[in-house]
This record gives sequence, C-alpha cells and structure tokens, in this order.
Amino acid sequence: MSHANAMRRSLVLKRRPDGEPGPDDFQMVETPLPQPGHGEVLTRTIWLSIDPYMRGRLYDRPSYAPAQQLGETMTGETVGEVIASADPAFQPGDYVVGSRGWETHSLSRAGTLTKLPPGGAHLSAYLGVLGMPGTTAYSGMLDIGQPKAGETVVISAASGAVGAVAGQIARRAGARVVGVAGGPEKCLWVQEALGFDGCIDHRAHDVATALREACPDGIDVYWENVGGAVQAAAFGQLNFFARVVMCGMVAQYNDAKPPPGPTLGFVVGKRVRIEGLIVFDKPHRYAEWRALAAPWVADGSLRYRETISEGLDSAPEALAAVLTGGNFGKMLVRVGPERI
Amino acid sequence: MSHANAMRRSLVLKRRPDGEPGPDDFQMVETPLPQPGHGEVLTRTIWLSIDPYMRGRLYDRPSYAPAQQLGETMTGETVGEVIASADPAFQPGDYVVGSRGWETHSLSRAGTLTKLPPGGAHLSAYLGVLGMPGTTAYSGMLDIGQPKAGETVVISAASGAVGAVAGQIARRAGARVVGVAGGPEKCLWVQEALGFDGCIDHRAHDVATALREACPDGIDVYWENVGGAVQAAAFGQLNFFARVVMCGMVAQYNDAKPPPGPTLGFVVGKRVRIEGLIVFDKPHRYAEWRALAAPWVADGSLRYRETISEGLDSAPEALAAVLTGGNFGKMLVRVGPERI
Repeated sequence: MSHANAMRRSLVLKRRPDGEPGPDDFQMVETPLPQPGHGEVLTRTIWLSIDPYMRGRLYDRPSYAPAQQLGETMTGETVGEVIASADPAFQPGDYVVGSRGWETHSLSRAGTLTKLPPGGAHLSAYLGVLGMPGTTAYSGMLDIGQPKAGETVVISAASGAVGAVAGQIARRAGARVVGVAGGPEKCLWVQEALGFDGCIDHRAHDVATALREACPDGIDVYWENVGGAVQAAAFGQLNFFARVVMCGMVAQYNDAKPPPGPTLGFVVGKRVRIEGLIVFDKPHRYAEWRALAAPWVADGSLRYRETISEGLDSAPEALAAVLTGGNFGKMLVRVGPERI
Repeated sequence: MSHANAMRRSLVLKRRPDGEPGPDDFQMVETPLPQPGHGEVLTRTIWLSIDPYMRGRLYDRPSYAPAQQLGETMTGETVGEVIASADPAFQPGDYVVGSRGWETHSLSRAGTLTKLPPGGAHLSAYLGVLGMPGTTAYSGMLDIGQPKAGETVVISAASGAVGAVAGQIARRAGARVVGVAGGPEKCLWVQEALGFDGCIDHRAHDVATALREACPDGIDVYWENVGGAVQAAAFGQLNFFARVVMCGMVAQYNDAKPPPGPTLGFVVGKRVRIEGLIVFDKPHRYAEWRALAAPWVADGSLRYRETISEGLDSAPEALAAVLTGGNFGKMLVRVGPERI
C-alpha cells in the first residue's frame, strides 16, 4: 500500500469547553496511518459533518449521545473514500458515509459504512439533505409532526440543515409553512429559494407579534430547534391538537446549567412524549371501558372510593373541595334518593 | 302526570368566582317542572358528579369545555331516574346517566342519555369508576401512557377518581406503581386498598427526594393531575422514552393567571403533543428518506444550502458557528478533496 508511511491527523478533546467551544479545547495529534484488519476498511476523510448536537457530547454527563472522552478523537459523521479494505464489500475508490470522527483517515468496521451510489447526489449531500439532518426532518414530520393540508407549520432555525428540509416536507404535505431564522439573508433564502410562505427574522422582530401576524389561524405543528424566546412565542400560539417536534434547543447548548425556571430540554434528549388528554375527544372509550371494568367492579378487584356531599345546595362547596384535595376519591352530590 | 305542579330547583352561576369558588357565586332558582316534548325525557337527579375540570368553565375564556354562561344552570354529569318520557326508548323508572347539570330535575334529548343496566354496579359508580373519570384513566393509559410490565408509573392525585383507576390499570399491566397524595389517610388507602407499590404524602415530604427513593429505576410513565412542585419533581426523574399523560393541573385551577415562568397548562386543554426526537432511534428511516428524497435533490425541487469550512483544523470554529447561527444551512468541514 502506498499509504504505509503516511500519517493520520486527528483532533482530540483536550479539555471540556466552558461556554462556546474553541480551538484551544482540542489538540491535533499525528499518528501513523493504521492498516485495516479483517473486516475493516480504511478511508480518507473528504467531508466532516458539524452538527449542533455535538455540543452535548462535550459535557461530562449522560446525554443521548455518549459523552466525548478527554484525549480521544472527537466523533462525527463523515463521507470518505476507501483507500484500503480488508472486507470484500468495499474496494479502494468506493465513496462511503459513516460515523467516525474529526480525523483525516478513519478505520471502520465494514458494517458501519454505507456505500454511496456512483452518479448520485453531490457527496456532501449525504451528510445533509440526504443524511442525518434530512432524515431527522423526515422522521420528525412523519412520526410526530404529521402536517396536514391547510395546517400551519412553524419551523425554527428554518435555514438550517434540518429546518430547511422539515419545512419543504411540510409544504409537500400541503401545509402553510412559516420559518423563523436569524437575519435578513437567511429569511430571504427561506422564502425565495425554499418557498416558505413566510419567514420571521427573530433578530429584527418581536417573535410573538410577528408570529401572530404570520399565523392568523394559529400554529398546528411547531418544529423546535432553538428553545428560549422563540419557543415561548410559538407555544403561546399553538392550536388545539397541535404537535411539537422537540428536535433541539440550540439556544441553550452552550449553557452548562439550564436557564432559570422550567425548561423542556430534557424532552429532546430523553425522547419524552408529553400529551394532553381530554376524554371528551374519545367517546368510543366510554362503552369500551364500562364493558371491561364492570366485572372488575363487581368482583371487587377494581377499588374506588367516594366522598358524598348531601343536597344540591352543597354543590359549590363540593367543587371547592375537589380543587384543594378536600375530597377523598370521587366527589359526588346526592341530589335525591335512589328510590322514592 | 303527578309532577305537573312540582317545581325544579337549579343552581345558576351568579358571578365568576375570584379564586376558590363558593356558595355566593351561585344562586338557587325555582321554576316549574318542565314536561318532555317529542323525543325528550324528564329525569329527577339522584347523583351529581363534581369534577375539577368544572373550575375551568367558570372563567370567561375559551377552554376545552365551553365557558359557563352567567345566569344559566351550571353543567355537570348526573345519574337520574326517568319520571316522564316522550321517547319510546325510555320508560319511567329507568336509571340513566347523562350530561345535564346542577338541578333537581333535567329535561334531556333522549339521544344524550345512556340507560343503566338493571342489577349493574351501584348507580354512583357510573359517574366515577365506570364513568368519565374511569374512562379518562383508561383512555390515558391506553392511548398515551402505555405502561409495560416492569416499568415504573407515578400517579399524582393518586386517591382521586382518575388517579385511583389509572394506577390500578397500570398495575394490571404489570408496572410498578407509585402514587402521590395529600395526607397519611389517603396514602394508606392508596397502598393498602389499591395495592400501589408506594405512595408519597406530598404534604409531609419533599416530593423530589421521596420520589427518588420510591423510584430507584426512574419514572417511565407520569400521570399529571396536579402540576406545580409535584410536576417539577416527576419531570426531573423521567426516564428515556418516558410518557407524560397531561390530564390536569388542579394545583393551578383557582389561579386566574398562570404562575410566573413557563407552564404547561395549555398542553392539557389544547391536547398538545410534545415529543422528543432523536433520529438515531430510527435507523430504518435513513434509507427510506434517501430513496424518497434523492430524486427531489436530483431534479432540484428539494433545496438545500451548505456552509463549508476549509480544513480539519477549522472544525472547532465550525462547531462554535453552528451553535450561534454563524452557519447558513448545513455546516461541513472539507477535510480532503473529493478526488486525488
């Protein structure tokens, strides 16, 4: 192999950044180029993807991505060219996408690489529109947002790798799509090139006011990429049965501690689902539950307790009681006798 | 009819309560007993259900329940006995459940009433365990909470009409169930009679500390009935992929204005779904999206934009840029040329 004496350059994490990450938090290390063992593939890196989620890995705490260890090469997705292969599925000259890192050359298990089709899209697209960010947009709209024709969809960080695709998917579904982005250049591109129905420059306008004007019918789907003031404004204008895709809260990633007050950052990392329930929406469940539970009530295995307030006149006090825990179990007013 | 000269007593809303509702907010009105017209049924009220959601109707603002109008009879679910019917489906002596109000007699369209089976459960059960609160618990666990065997489920207001049933359903699913209730008597009942695996008295203990002790494996399903400090404690201990059933936030119902800081009260009333998304959980979506979107990229109908940072050494600055909006579209580092 002609690469036998070549060196590999890798950026390793030197210290955990305090706030915004910078060059001094990393160190360039040179090591001899590794050779692939059985089932391994050596690639040279062409494109390295930089994504906001990487900030979370720099904290020494559990996250959905494992914490980056000090002294180890920073991880990240790459597109590379195979330069040596000890696996029959890959040949030198193949272009592949995989998860390796901030390094000029990567040694990978063959099973972790995806070969890119010759004559396909531009290589870098496999890290963006056709890669992880694009798939994030697709999955989020398909699995959570589910925009319908005529609905209003708001996309924060609308010119970003995820937001731009998410909004275009929603437009294909027939939704009205309004973006939020930082600066006139991004907003212009979101409207002109992406064809969004509107885009709000959060640096130039009060987002709540601008959203109310841009979304006169309220918001049915909100795509959360940023958190903070944009989130507060969007949450305040959600419609009944709105869906919020919690994809990221980049506005807070540089803060080691969460901002004061409740924050929903955990919803992203923990993939929590928080959903409002009003049983009046599900009339079919009433008879279903009665049929299921009546035998359990009859055999005593489903327990319940009642607090009985006597006489119609006592209804207001009974209502006051259920609001302060003054009842024990189901609160009822006995208005009349069962038999007369 | 022997009821021709009888009177009906009704509690009408006199003024909107400021804080806790009381007797002075309502007025008792006597009117002649109505007679059923074609397709109508006259019932005498036996049981009137008192539920926390009623507080929301007393505000003059849109809610999932229509605002209660001043001077009109307060609405509520009742069990009654038919005393006159102008519909062939109902006969005097039938027991029925329906949505009418705070009144001794109700005139209803026959189609709004459900006849109760003779020899069934105690009549009041059809307003509680077998009625709206029981169905709420059933629907919330079936449609949102979905507890699995071995998971940990936390139920706030655990001795209440909804919480008691929700917890018992979760136990039948094989989950470990911990309640939160106010006072030792309720907690004892929740553990002894309902068979919950534990119950925390939020008046006697710091809920966060007690929850950590009672839920050493974290919380997989949190049933929200109360909001406030209990919510904050439970949210802090949610597991990955946890589900939160937002059923009510009774701790805040007497407050005309929401408490300071973000609050999730709107999630209940608006049935909002807020869900965390990490695309790494959905590996099957990658190839699906590439197959779908590659033609759109090829024909130019799916637009994207890239910001390219030159050389591996620039990766730290590139990461700093995506965290502050310094990029425009997908951020990439060009580590090497596409062809050498």
